[in-house]
Amino acid sequence: MALPTPPGYRALDDKSLPQYLADLDDVRRLLGGKPEQWTVREVGDGNLNLVFIVEGPAGGVCVKQALPYVRAAGESWPMPLERAFFESSYYAAVAPYVGGLIPTIYHYSPTLYCTVMERLTPHVIQRREMIVGRRHPKAAPDVGEYIARASFFTSDLAGAFERKMDMAAIFAKNQPPVRITTELIFADPYRTNPRNRWTSPQLDEVCADFHRDGPLKAAAVRFGDKFLSGAQALIHGDLHTGSVMVTPTDTRVIDPEFAMMGPIGFDLGAYMGNLLLSWYSQPGHATAADDRKAMQAWILEQVTIFWETFRDRFLALWRSNANGDAYPVSMFSAPSDVPFLEGARRTYVDSLFADMLGFGACKMIRRILGFAHNIDFEWIKDRDRRGAAETGALLMARTLLTCPEQFHSINDVVAAVPYFVRKPGAAGQPIRL
Amino acid sequence: MALPTPPGYRALDDKSLPQYLADLDDVRRLLGGKPEQWTVREVGDGNLNLVFIVEGPAGGVCVKQALPYVRAAGESWPMPLERAFFESSYYAAVAPYVGGLIPTIYHYSPTLYCTVMERLTPHVIQRREMIVGRRHPKAAPDVGEYIARASFFTSDLAGAFERKMDMAAIFAKNQPPVRITTELIFADPYRTNPRNRWTSPQLDEVCADFHRDGPLKAAAVRFGDKFLSGAQALIHGDLHTGSVMVTPTDTRVIDPEFAMMGPIGFDLGAYMGNLLLSWYSQPGHATAADDRKAMQAWILEQVTIFWETFRDRFLALWRSNANGDAYPVSMFSAPSDVPFLEGARRTYVDSLFADMLGFGACKMIRRILGFAHNIDFEWIKDRDRRGAAETGALLMARTLLTCPEQFHSINDVVAAVPYFVRKPGAAGQPIRL
Repeated sequence: MALPTPPGYRALDDKSLPQYLADLDDVRRLLGGKPEQWTVREVGDGNLNLVFIVEGPAGGVCVKQALPYVRAAGESWPMPLERAFFESSYYAAVAPYVGGLIPTIYHYSPTLYCTVMERLTPHVIQRREMIVGRRHPKAAPDVGEYIARASFFTSDLAGAFERKMDMAAIFAKNQPPVRITTELIFADPYRTNPRNRWTSPQLDEVCADFHRDGPLKAAAVRFGDKFLSGAQALIHGDLHTGSVMVTPTDTRVIDPEFAMMGPIGFDLGAYMGNLLLSWYSQPGHATAADDRKAMQAWILEQVTIFWETFRDRFLALWRSNANGDAYPVSMFSAPSDVPFLEGARRTYVDSLFADMLGFGACKMIRRILGFAHNIDFEWIKDRDRRGAAETGALLMARTLLTCPEQFHSINDVVAAVPYFVRKPGAAGQPIRL
Repeated sequence: MALPTPPGYRALDDKSLPQYLADLDDVRRLLGGKPEQWTVREVGDGNLNLVFIVEGPAGGVCVKQALPYVRAAGESWPMPLERAFFESSYYAAVAPYVGGLIPTIYHYSPTLYCTVMERLTPHVIQRREMIVGRRHPKAAPDVGEYIARASFFTSDLAGAFERKMDMAAIFAKNQPPVRITTELIFADPYRTNPRNRWTSPQLDEVCADFHRDGPLKAAAVRFGDKFLSGAQALIHGDLHTGSVMVTPTDTRVIDPEFAMMGPIGFDLGAYMGNLLLSWYSQPGHATAADDRKAMQAWILEQVTIFWETFRDRFLALWRSNANGDAYPVSMFSAPSDVPFLEGARRTYVDSLFADMLGFGACKMIRRILGFAHNIDFEWIKDRDRRGAAETGALLMARTLLTCPEQFHSINDVVAAVPYFVRKPGAAGQPIRL
């Protein structure tokens, strides 16, 4: 059942939404004309919320409203409205640091649990663009830059720890998304659960194999624990390619309702893992005119660019803005100290790299063997091709988790990716490992 | 200046305290007789609070009240009263799990910021007993057991993560102690700061050496960062031998006002590091009748017993009470999974061991080169002997921090301790390294 809703809350529709917006002076001016002239379209295709595009004679806005249940699962899966508050709190916390990489937020209504924000146009979701083979070269470096800025400036490296503890006190109450992540990413894909699904029978064998793979499960639970206890910075919590809107010249990160204090590598891994999922899915979208080989090569370039941009920007920010209680520069004021502080920074960033690979692998596996799947694979109609693509991704992810010592650099990751490709097997049969 | 105090707050004294206690039915009965018959003694010798022993015809209680400043530093160092709330919250959180290893708490007053608790008698502070060479064999295993129970049951290994996040939301507000720990333990001892002091001139050279030791400082800041970001469990935050009260048959952990969500190894290191400090201080308390060699041998046994008791109890609790969201047992239900889950547990406990050594070393260094010193060394009147004892402890701590790969087991730690002993140098001269 949906949860009981607080007084004043109502799900907005094309009648009540213009009435609400008409009372917001800046939004009314932005839309122009009169409320009767405004058009309202509900465009939410996500799992959790209502999303409206409202257009007037002068401009448009986007309105995102929380529903008291998981939309993808129906009213049988309740989901507190408060996630809208945490989303707007996250945007407010990172806005001073990330420049134009998030939408402009105009209003948040604590009664309606809705956010009125910039209408992003002609932006499109990066995941969908990758499925149709379109390249947006700004996305990967922009997301790398984004994670560097958002995580560095909300960590103890940049400021007094009291600021981070104040954020921790707030975001410690954003528990329902953590419940989802903990179960759906770090547990269910490795055990029998009626919520799981996979391409069957093609993946039956690999799924059973994963369920009995002790070293794989031991690695996954280690990252699950790190997710719960590694409070390095304020993280987005769901930063996959479906949370990135792109144009040829602009990138925006959206949908931070899973925001929490957590490990920086979780955001890095979400994006990297989804780039790799796209890579493995490409042959499933091949046509006579485009075998997608060039697209795959481009994706691997983006993996490298993403990580290197993050690493270089994070280190540069640290060198120039080290005003935090962690790694205090006042302890390293002599010229002879510099290489040791720099070495400590490198060690820190190396640990983020290792976390990116582990979390990224967990994100890949959950999208193939767990509850929530990606359209990258779902839109491959031929189940044999889909199963083969998914198997490749699963085997890569397993290697990332169980053989981390093989991956010293992003080049090692990129080099390994093609080795796990599997051809479709006999029609309608399980894929042999 | 002391902070302004809230309405109703007043520092208690021997007149107002009986009036307050007389209104608490159970305490009045426990003390017996009439308030006029009760005797009040202020016995606080700590850094932060008023501590009263109140005795009546039938029994006694202990009353601990927060002052709005750091008592050891005077009113010039303000310190919020709220630490008393966090102390009582910590006691309440761990009480269900630690049995009789904390005092019984009778009342907490949110107005007076004071806690009325069991009067521990004939308990004495373990640190003082060790200085005079008295052995309490229950202390080390009991504290090992205590940390195992308190940390396991407040971690994500034992229960739903929501419970830990609820605690995190509360304890994220206990910031002033974290400010003290961050600066006084992880930063000041490695940099010039007017709050620092050390046995001079005997330690001038080693102090200067530590201030320019890049690898040492890089290791210390790594643990400082882990202290701020490693939210494994609810920890005591100040669990040295001065926070442990002992009798030959009973042990109690007191003074948890530095409680926070943090790394389990921080509590382990506090206790282990202070056992090692006592070891190095023993020759300074030697007499013609007792050279303290036997006491030193006993202390090293306690180091081993402490760690092994912790490790064995923590693992046993984990095997029998794994109801948490981290390392979920439902992922390891097949017999073939058991060795891998057990291996993951061993890896986890090994990381606690490494953390114990690093945090313990930081705790040792801060007590010799920083602001707050230990009576273990302070009570050694001969400054040359004191300086020699302190130098040994510093060199051991430095090795723990900079050469962690040398310490695979607690036996390696115990075996290394004697190698760092330094003899007093020429009278009144710096000790040559």
